[in-house]
Amino acid sequence: MNSDPIAHAHCDGPCGVYDPAAARINAEAVLSMTKKLLVIEMPATDNKEALLAYHNMMTRYIHIKEEQAQKCKEELLILWTDYFKPPHLEKFPELHETFWKAAKLCSHCKVEVNLQSAEKLMEAVKNIHEIFWKSKDRDVEWVLAS
Amino acid sequence: MNSDPIAHAHCDGPCGVYDPAAARINAEAVLSMTKKLLVIEMPATDNKEALLAYHNMMTRYIHIKEEQAQKCKEELLILWTDYFKPPHLEKFPELHETFWKAAKLCSHCKVEVNLQSAEKLMEAVKNIHEIFWKSKDRDVEWVLAS
Amino acid sequence: MNSDPIAHAHCDGPCGVYDPAAARINAEAVLSMTKKLLVIEMPATDNKEALLAYHNMMTRYIHIKEEQAQKCKEELLILWTDYFKPPHLEKFPELHETFWKAAKLCSHCKVEVNLQSAEKLMEAVKNIHEIFWKSKDRDVEWVLAS
Amino acid sequence: MNSDPIAHAHCDGPCGVYDPAAARINAEAVLSMTKKLLVIEMPATDNKEALLAYHNMMTRYIHIKEEQAQKCKEELLILWTDYFKPPHLEKFPELHETFWKAAKLCSHCKVEVNLQSAEKLMEAVKNIHEIFWKSKDRDVEWVLAS
Amino acid sequence: MNSDPIAHAHCDGPCGVYDPAAARINAEAVLSMTKKLLVIEMPATDNKEALLAYHNMMTRYIHIKEEQAQKCKEELLILWTDYFKPPHLEKFPELHETFWKAAKLCSHCKVEVNLQSAEKLMEAVKNIHEIFWKSKDRDVEWVLAS
Amino acid sequence: MNSDPIAHAHCDGPCGVYDPAAARINAEAVLSMTKKLLVIEMPATDNKEALLAYHNMMTRYIHIKEEQAQKCKEELLILWTDYFKPPHLEKFPELHETFWKAAKLCSHCKVEVNLQSAEKLMEAVKNIHEIFWKSKDRDVEWVLAS
Repeated sequence: MNSDPIAHAHCDGPCGVYDPAAARINAEAVLSMTKKLLVIEMPATDNKEALLAYHNMMTRYIHIKEEQAQKCKEELLILWTDYFKPPHLEKFPELHETFWKAAKLCSHCKVEVNLQSAEKLMEAVKNIHEIFWKSKDRDVEWVLAS
Repeated sequence: MNSDPIAHAHCDGPCGVYDPAAARINAEAVLSMTKKLLVIEMPATDNKEALLAYHNMMTRYIHIKEEQAQKCKEELLILWTDYFKPPHLEKFPELHETFWKAAKLCSHCKVEVNLQSAEKLMEAVKNIHEIFWKSKDRDVEWVLAS
Repeated sequence: MNSDPIAHAHCDGPCGVYDPAAARINAEAVLSMTKKLLVIEMPATDNKEALLAYHNMMTRYIHIKEEQAQKCKEELLILWTDYFKPPHLEKFPELHETFWKAAKLCSHCKVEVNLQSAEKLMEAVKNIHEIFWKSKDRDVEWVLAS
Repeated sequence: MNSDPIAHAHCDGPCGVYDPAAARINAEAVLSMTKKLLVIEMPATDNKEALLAYHNMMTRYIHIKEEQAQKCKEELLILWTDYFKPPHLEKFPELHETFWKAAKLCSHCKVEVNLQSAEKLMEAVKNIHEIFWKSKDRDVEWVLAS
Repeated sequence: MNSDPIAHAHCDGPCGVYDPAAARINAEAVLSMTKKLLVIEMPATDNKEALLAYHNMMTRYIHIKEEQAQKCKEELLILWTDYFKPPHLEKFPELHETFWKAAKLCSHCKVEVNLQSAEKLMEAVKNIHEIFWKSKDRDVEWVLAS
Repeated sequence: MNSDPIAHAHCDGPCGVYDPAAARINAEAVLSMTKKLLVIEMPATDNKEALLAYHNMMTRYIHIKEEQAQKCKEELLILWTDYFKPPHLEKFPELHETFWKAAKLCSHCKVEVNLQSAEKLMEAVKNIHEIFWKSKDRDVEWVLAS
């Protein structure tokens, strides 16, 4: 049950049905793909079959990382634009910067194959999870799926 | 951490990053929109401004219910086709029927504005949440966002 | 030609190819659909053919307004997350609030059929157009398509 | 097997895998939804439950008609821009007009709930089916799914 | 014309307008792209222009294969969840397993560049085509576009 | 303001809100990505970290080029099918060929990494921009964002 009356005002549609878990799942996938990419070895260029499998895997993993980073950014921005309201700024004065930086981390994870960026993204999403549930006076555990 | 070796085989992409929470969020939205739709009153047809607001709200809520029911169906089917593997059928012999019925409940929620169907969908998703985490030897709480 | 070196850092993809015109086109469509919706008359309920045409038009216009308001929000957020960088905050200290309010105006235009909100959205996009080109030391005219 | 060498040149991706059947399925759906919409009766405005079911059905059918008409247009345009090549214009000098009119019929089917337009769209797609298979020196039956 | 009354119950929208041809077209594209990928040769790494063309082609073909395999999976699942009803299980007791395996073949075709998997997918879709038309007491030819 | 009465007839939705600027932005992005791709150097195959960054960049740029070329094609086709009407053919007898060739240029830009094709696409979009504004008796400057 939603005990936070602020969230009912002027929302786009499903009032009260916001959950940082959506962004968390995407961020976990970004981290997972980043880790996988970091351990792939390029085969010898004369092994045609292995080279084809290598390209297929690289292209797919890079593409999934891109998609998941994009979805993560979108889910975070929905919380920023649709859930959080002006009264929240009193309690969380750094709200805008928090979301701006988290969105930019999503971009870094696309542009690079960087374990640190992917881990920072997980922390940023976790931080937003904490801010979100605090704003609803609820204590919801941060539970990873992977 | 993923303790289930079965899930690593032949997956579409982010191995281990499956979470019924995605389907849960969508199902909660379907229930929320269904409840909202059930309490809207049609204004007198000579009150042009109220009639316009009524149509805008009805159309939007029906459309959001449709989108969320569709996403719920897609998220559930990803679990069925990509996460669950043949060895799981021994432990969960009713797996196919479970997912088939849950998907059909998503359809019912689109085709009707029916509180019972929306509540049954929540139960179906909860049941799948339980099967999913049981298959991973993990105990993850069923926590609603709304 | 892009004369602003700041914009090259850490972008998601097409460096330098950001243009508020995309958001402007969407905002113009929101205003256009809002105006059309405000002048539709509901026919007598015994004129079956006219009633069907009325519903078709209402549903379509509300749906297009929804889509365009959503695209406008997305285009604006791309500028905020991907184009603008920390050094820009010195010159435009109200950047975050500006984008936050503009995104919320997109939501208002969805939730209501309100001429004032649609016109405010046009002003908000125009303001962002001015901030954007100022940040590039370029003077680009604000030209409406409609 | 593709016996038409012209189709191999400069295509976007899956050379030879073009099939007007995709557009046909969408056109059949447009016709189906149009027929369904034409027989719905608006209930008495004091029957709240029936009115809600009526709005849900109207909104959904109009939305599906819109989607299917849009997909039909897209499928037809893929054939025009990607499959047909300059040498085809000798054999089919009216090619551009044919596709232009068919695309505009898709628009008519969106803008109106008109049985004639929906039937004309089926004929337009059938005509394109015939032109397409003739260009490949193949005789493929026009088979409706509905 | 749809002669099967079972298909009218509880469907998502366009009753009767289901056609395995949609999935067939996607499967043909998967097979086509798989064949193309299997014959591409990697050029010498000092030929910059050829290397760029090679990467462009590889990336595009892998991406199109991915998209088409995903669409094939979606089209098949629409038939499973929306068209087939409980009474069909008597006539086709292996229905669930059939669709589950076909969906998993779509995944195999993404994860690998494997001619056998792509051919098996074609057979799986053909089998579903046969089940589908048998359930409608109709005999519709299996006609390839490529 | 729209001074062209022809454009009001039979349009898909937002009458008067058509703007070639949308296609221009996409074409600029295609050109931008093409230029970037032409200057990337493949690192030595024994430098694992550089090779990974190279693949990530190549895959992303090729994918963005693909997306933007596709969006450009879609935006152009919206103008052709929805904005232009039969009376326009008198003033612009080459209309169909113009759009057909522009759409095919979008395809060339996908299939190749070719600076000439990307520049020709910019010219094609500029030409359509000129035709479009001429049809509205308006003089709108061709202004690049990049």
